[in-house]
Amino acid sequence: MKALQIAEPGAPEGLALVELRDPAPGPGEVLLRVRAIALNYRDLAMVKGAYPNTPTPLIPFSDACAVVEAVGEGVTRVEPGDRVATLFHQAWLDGPPTAEKLSRPLAQGAPGMGRELLVLSEEGVSKVPEHLTDEQAATLPCAALTAWRVLFEDGGRLAGETVVLEGTGGVSVFGLQFAHAAGLRTIVTSSSDAKLERARALGADYLINYRRTPEWSAEVLRITEGRGAETILEVGGAGTFPEALKAVAVGGKVGVIGMVSGMPNAVDARSLIRSNARLAGVFVGSRAMFEAMGRAIAFRGIEPVVDEVFPWADAAAALRLMERGGHFGKIVLKVG
Amino acid sequence: MKALQIAEPGAPEGLALVELRDPAPGPGEVLLRVRAIALNYRDLAMVKGAYPNTPTPLIPFSDACAVVEAVGEGVTRVEPGDRVATLFHQAWLDGPPTAEKLSRPLAQGAPGMGRELLVLSEEGVSKVPEHLTDEQAATLPCAALTAWRVLFEDGGRLAGETVVLEGTGGVSVFGLQFAHAAGLRTIVTSSSDAKLERARALGADYLINYRRTPEWSAEVLRITEGRGAETILEVGGAGTFPEALKAVAVGGKVGVIGMVSGMPNAVDARSLIRSNARLAGVFVGSRAMFEAMGRAIAFRGIEPVVDEVFPWADAAAALRLMERGGHFGKIVLKVG
Amino acid sequence: MKALQIAEPGAPEGLALVELRDPAPGPGEVLLRVRAIALNYRDLAMVKGAYPNTPTPLIPFSDACAVVEAVGEGVTRVEPGDRVATLFHQAWLDGPPTAEKLSRPLAQGAPGMGRELLVLSEEGVSKVPEHLTDEQAATLPCAALTAWRVLFEDGGRLAGETVVLEGTGGVSVFGLQFAHAAGLRTIVTSSSDAKLERARALGADYLINYRRTPEWSAEVLRITEGRGAETILEVGGAGTFPEALKAVAVGGKVGVIGMVSGMPNAVDARSLIRSNARLAGVFVGSRAMFEAMGRAIAFRGIEPVVDEVFPWADAAAALRLMERGGHFGKIVLKVG
Amino acid sequence: MKALQIAEPGAPEGLALVELRDPAPGPGEVLLRVRAIALNYRDLAMVKGAYPNTPTPLIPFSDACAVVEAVGEGVTRVEPGDRVATLFHQAWLDGPPTAEKLSRPLAQGAPGMGRELLVLSEEGVSKVPEHLTDEQAATLPCAALTAWRVLFEDGGRLAGETVVLEGTGGVSVFGLQFAHAAGLRTIVTSSSDAKLERARALGADYLINYRRTPEWSAEVLRITEGRGAETILEVGGAGTFPEALKAVAVGGKVGVIGMVSGMPNAVDARSLIRSNARLAGVFVGSRAMFEAMGRAIAFRGIEPVVDEVFPWADAAAALRLMERGGHFGKIVLKVG
Repeated sequence: MKALQIAEPGAPEGLALVELRDPAPGPGEVLLRVRAIALNYRDLAMVKGAYPNTPTPLIPFSDACAVVEAVGEGVTRVEPGDRVATLFHQAWLDGPPTAEKLSRPLAQGAPGMGRELLVLSEEGVSKVPEHLTDEQAATLPCAALTAWRVLFEDGGRLAGETVVLEGTGGVSVFGLQFAHAAGLRTIVTSSSDAKLERARALGADYLINYRRTPEWSAEVLRITEGRGAETILEVGGAGTFPEALKAVAVGGKVGVIGMVSGMPNAVDARSLIRSNARLAGVFVGSRAMFEAMGRAIAFRGIEPVVDEVFPWADAAAALRLMERGGHFGKIVLKVG
Repeated sequence: MKALQIAEPGAPEGLALVELRDPAPGPGEVLLRVRAIALNYRDLAMVKGAYPNTPTPLIPFSDACAVVEAVGEGVTRVEPGDRVATLFHQAWLDGPPTAEKLSRPLAQGAPGMGRELLVLSEEGVSKVPEHLTDEQAATLPCAALTAWRVLFEDGGRLAGETVVLEGTGGVSVFGLQFAHAAGLRTIVTSSSDAKLERARALGADYLINYRRTPEWSAEVLRITEGRGAETILEVGGAGTFPEALKAVAVGGKVGVIGMVSGMPNAVDARSLIRSNARLAGVFVGSRAMFEAMGRAIAFRGIEPVVDEVFPWADAAAALRLMERGGHFGKIVLKVG
Repeated sequence: MKALQIAEPGAPEGLALVELRDPAPGPGEVLLRVRAIALNYRDLAMVKGAYPNTPTPLIPFSDACAVVEAVGEGVTRVEPGDRVATLFHQAWLDGPPTAEKLSRPLAQGAPGMGRELLVLSEEGVSKVPEHLTDEQAATLPCAALTAWRVLFEDGGRLAGETVVLEGTGGVSVFGLQFAHAAGLRTIVTSSSDAKLERARALGADYLINYRRTPEWSAEVLRITEGRGAETILEVGGAGTFPEALKAVAVGGKVGVIGMVSGMPNAVDARSLIRSNARLAGVFVGSRAMFEAMGRAIAFRGIEPVVDEVFPWADAAAALRLMERGGHFGKIVLKVG
Repeated sequence: MKALQIAEPGAPEGLALVELRDPAPGPGEVLLRVRAIALNYRDLAMVKGAYPNTPTPLIPFSDACAVVEAVGEGVTRVEPGDRVATLFHQAWLDGPPTAEKLSRPLAQGAPGMGRELLVLSEEGVSKVPEHLTDEQAATLPCAALTAWRVLFEDGGRLAGETVVLEGTGGVSVFGLQFAHAAGLRTIVTSSSDAKLERARALGADYLINYRRTPEWSAEVLRITEGRGAETILEVGGAGTFPEALKAVAVGGKVGVIGMVSGMPNAVDARSLIRSNARLAGVFVGSRAMFEAMGRAIAFRGIEPVVDEVFPWADAAAALRLMERGGHFGKIVLKVG
């Protein structure tokens, strides 16, 4: 089998296909053949060495669509031929998060997905909706689940409530699709009018070009007749945080999502107190959340937006595209 | 001014228009000119004498659309010319229910709506969405708010979750419209294929004719791949309760709504325990819930379904129609 | 090894010790040596044949304290020598309940505890607080966890809120201890003044002898200045349900707990609607809840109340004592 | 009547007693005779000019215990002779916060409490528990309610859960008393061993002198066996925030309380994401919360800790004491 490996963290161009021995599943494990891998900012950060305790050589990537090739003794959740996604938190199956449940994310406490063949616990995979392509299914584990969790996993509401999506990266585009399907009022920000038009086609109710309107919180307040947005998916980091805190409704929620988009590093607590709002740290979600999301995606026929597909041998080019931010939605590698 | 009054509870045909003195608003009060009144089963029960402590003569009805004619000293929430709905619970403005908040429903602790002119506290009315006719706006205080509360006021979720609507009365049709707007999977039951087709046009995903399929819970379980429905609006009473308890998902919720449809009187606690479900008593809702609902209705452009409009002089005929159950959605009286 | 078995459901006196082959743990499994077994009404009902699909011969009982004797390959949650409780729902580890999680309770989908030696999945046991005796630890899986879940697992509050405990069986006595430790106001009902005095010693704030005061809801309303009790642990069944529905506060919760005390069979939905209360079906709880409860018991030094301990050869006498209702708290069998 | 007024913001020594005309209550209003005023950091900040839009001359202070002297037409909530507290948010009666509900805090959108006589809406006062002195009752509106809300108003739990109280100012001491009464595990930090001993006497389970242990989060993790604290009352600002974010449990909550203690100004979002924790901005609470807290205080006989009482003529000395931080619990002014 082949794997996509980098000897030492550094430039993505150091990623190379290497030969590894084929793995075999033990009791309770499944052997997976990886079909497609979706990129997240975390992959780029890991490849470039931003994660100090990364093992070397490093096989990066966490989000994959795979087919079950074989199952070990006692496996009941899946069978050979099933198409599955690999779950980001291999130990967070259900319930609220705990330190233990967060201790084995893929590519850190558990293996990275840059492989043709792979063994995981049967608990660490879930079947994916049938109407999705392999490339679409690969985008679900981090970006979709993060957006889903912020919107729905501690209470959601009908229309009249407003969600702000910052930019048009993977999490934000999923957030737009989910919020629109749930009848929520959606506001999308971007520096590109072309991207804003793509967002409109996915159901965005209001568009803000933050290049022309850098203080976009004022626009959110205007749209919402002064109330602000009940929910904001904060993926933009240091540049957007102050605006998010001004745009959030009294008693509203700002989902703080940094692993996929770079790190914000300061919060104005004065605004937070005045708004009685919540900042909720969001580091992906559980398997139970993933499966609820899967039922929703299947029922509504939601189609994840895959911007561009690269052969996995061109992983460096794909990571560079994400680094430049030229994409809309997700970038995917085709494996094998 | 005229009022629609019955000297003693009894046959609805005893309702007659009488002359009363025009009222005037005191400090903090508003004078309303009633435009339309929507019927609920409670009105019928009250007219027929099912409520022992009803004052006589009785002016029934609770749900109205009215225009503010004048305001008393210190009023700030509305101004003359505003179009409002009358809130069922005059004392439940916000937060969870308490005995005190439930102590002044219209036509019991507070006046009935069967009047051309009426004085209420400014706290007891709320503005209605502009796109609604007077007749549509009159349907919001009980039926719409009850459905809204069951669906959204202790947590809601995206598609993949299932809602069962029993029949096609006022609460159920609003429940269908709200659930559909929120991307939920909807199942409607009825004894009439014609009504089921009207439900489909409003977005019902699955239809069950309970005349042909009396054990409709089996069908709900089939549709949901064995999980059952996360939420059931239980309006049918004794005949439907056993099916509802079999159809609800483990951990799901049955909203028990009796004031509008007759009273269920037995619950199989064994089923309840096995399902770990909740039965939630629902007696309309608060002003804060009403206003959240109003924003949703406005944003989504939801149109309440008014089945038939009667002149208020024909109130008895309207009540008899409701009694026969021949309607779909709401029956409304035009006042004046 | 010995086991406590009944050939066909019937009189408890049919239970007899038989010889079975010693089991051995497979991968992911643990071998347990049972030390003590606590009785629940469900055991009695099962022995007497109230559960139609019970396999025969039947080895009953679900709640045990055991010591890990050996572990199979790959076990990490426990090691030999650990003292554990057996979890009632072997498949409900975390999160909200689902049909699948409820599908393997002990003595039905999973083995009964009436054995000297026993194999379970490592996932199906949890360590118990050190300050407890084996007999005390055996009482935790059903009775304690049920009380804990009703009180704390969908929101709890400080003093000023009121909890009603019906009688002085296992669930109610745990409910009293937990509620008292959490600073809640507690009201205990019983037909025995002697038992009420024992309840006072455990922290009961108010005592009601329901023989002298059959309409005890009026007394609850008096104590709470008309508000009623925010939480009621309903274990008494048909006889107590109507009083519970009158005693619950507007917006309050009645936890419906039947598996341990006989079955209520009718609910007055009219009361439920008026009170806007919730009836919550409660069928024990999850492993995550068990472990949270264990930390609380350890921190507060709570001592489960064991009323009487029988040698397991005298199981029939122990079940007959429970049947007569003469006990206060829990009845336990000492194994081996 | 006399009032405590400052002509222009500046040194607290500018506060002086002046003569004002006696006010009279209008419809729905109450005339109050102020008995005692409790100090908050906000008062000091306001006197010193940290609030730009403060009207001049300024009559500061928000927390008072008063006796109803007379009532206007239509008042039903209180009667002459009732002893009440003045509610900080005059417009936040119930339900979740909104911009409108937060628009009239005392001494900003509504009058300051530095007066012998005062008129407020009847909606803006609540009766206080009988066992409290006037000085104790004056401490409830901000400090007690803030602590109560963080601990209990979006879910609480039994022992085993851990609360961190930073320092021994008013909010923290109330937090300690409430958490202890609810059976929670409490950890108090302080730079003074003498204050830590006073905290122990109020029920603190663990004490940390942050002068000797500046990285106190490590100690919190040790005490909680690595889990961290489920709830932290963050009153310390910039100096403590990084430790709080390290000390909070995965999925836990940091209540951000700045109005009483100075303003934190940076948050490490990286920690927040890793911990999946929530930062909740807390700006006091609603009247409904106040009344729930009052019932708890009455039931448990909780005694607010009043460190020192000054005649109101010595308000400047009292404010200077608070500024130096030498107190434990609350500082109170006796009026008249």
